[in-house]
Amino acid sequence: MAHSDKPAATSPYELPPTPSRVNYSPIDATLRFLLFSASVVSVVLMVTSKQSQLVPVPGLPFAVTIPAKFNHSPAFIYFIAALSVAGLYSIITILASLSSISKAASSKTSLLLFAFGDVVMLGIVASATGASGAVGYIGLKGNDHSGWAKICDVYGKFCRHIGSATGVGLFAAVVLVFLSMLSTYSLYKRIRD
Amino acid sequence: MAHSDKPAATSPYELPPTPSRVNYSPIDATLRFLLFSASVVSVVLMVTSKQSQLVPVPGLPFAVTIPAKFNHSPAFIYFIAALSVAGLYSIITILASLSSISKAASSKTSLLLFAFGDVVMLGIVASATGASGAVGYIGLKGNDHSGWAKICDVYGKFCRHIGSATGVGLFAAVVLVFLSMLSTYSLYKRIRD
Repeated sequence: MAHSDKPAATSPYELPPTPSRVNYSPIDATLRFLLFSASVVSVVLMVTSKQSQLVPVPGLPFAVTIPAKFNHSPAFIYFIAALSVAGLYSIITILASLSSISKAASSKTSLLLFAFGDVVMLGIVASATGASGAVGYIGLKGNDHSGWAKICDVYGKFCRHIGSATGVGLFAAVVLVFLSMLSTYSLYKRIRD
Repeated sequence: MAHSDKPAATSPYELPPTPSRVNYSPIDATLRFLLFSASVVSVVLMVTSKQSQLVPVPGLPFAVTIPAKFNHSPAFIYFIAALSVAGLYSIITILASLSSISKAASSKTSLLLFAFGDVVMLGIVASATGASGAVGYIGLKGNDHSGWAKICDVYGKFCRHIGSATGVGLFAAVVLVFLSMLSTYSLYKRIRD
């Protein structure tokens, strides 16, 4: 691919070899749109996870309706904040990416800024996914050593939403890995020597 | 900095301008050594976190010695696995980085591979830090909504080790962000146009 993509040289004796000026902006814009979709879906799944259940309370003769909501755990609040920031970031970079599709290629400075921004967003989204997954796992399995009881046998819908949101968050993190690699690779292909 | 770092041109009329060939390998090797140190410290802190305490058990007339260990939580096991992989990765890349200090500059392919590897490692280390931090926070504060009691009032040393390991893991993630940016920036400075 690397060689076949080069534009035809005007003279066969021309030196140094012309660097590849393939425009990766369409792939970039597609990945950024995927990131935007994943961010929105995961935030919506997390926000709509509220579930109320009749739970027997020790010491009371009757069951009490207790809700489970995302804002009962700081990890889920951080998850929503992180994925919302990722969604906003993807909107801004989609516009920047679309504006360079029409040109011959993205400017090298915009590629550098994309690569920097993608790496920072990856750190935020990956840590949020880890935090949400760890708390969700305790909810699913409990932890006998700490005496933390599982809650997913009671709050099934809540846990399905948390688990799905975490999964989509992981997908967003993987998309950010590929986006960062694509920006770096586009810079690499511009080097002449 | 960008202009003063350029090597003196052999002719003042030479075109196109010579790209910067500054060798960033010493900074790169230093950051990778920091990453190695942070990985080792965080793994050692996590592994040495074991603490045994006399805990009163409901239903028993006497207290029982119950240990708290990192392998009681999957999040801490994942943390150790992730930071161990980061430590091994840092050893390999320190050797590669040191070998290019003696040369005029790193090869562009090695810079690309560094940038790819750094991004993947960042995703792994950041998610592990998030998971460990989330579980550690439940241990520290508990969660009234889920009925998860805090354990750090009893297992003080255990929690200090977990917290310190997570903090050092966060530092490792930040170092990986800067390493990834440095590799990308080195590629950027090689572009002639």
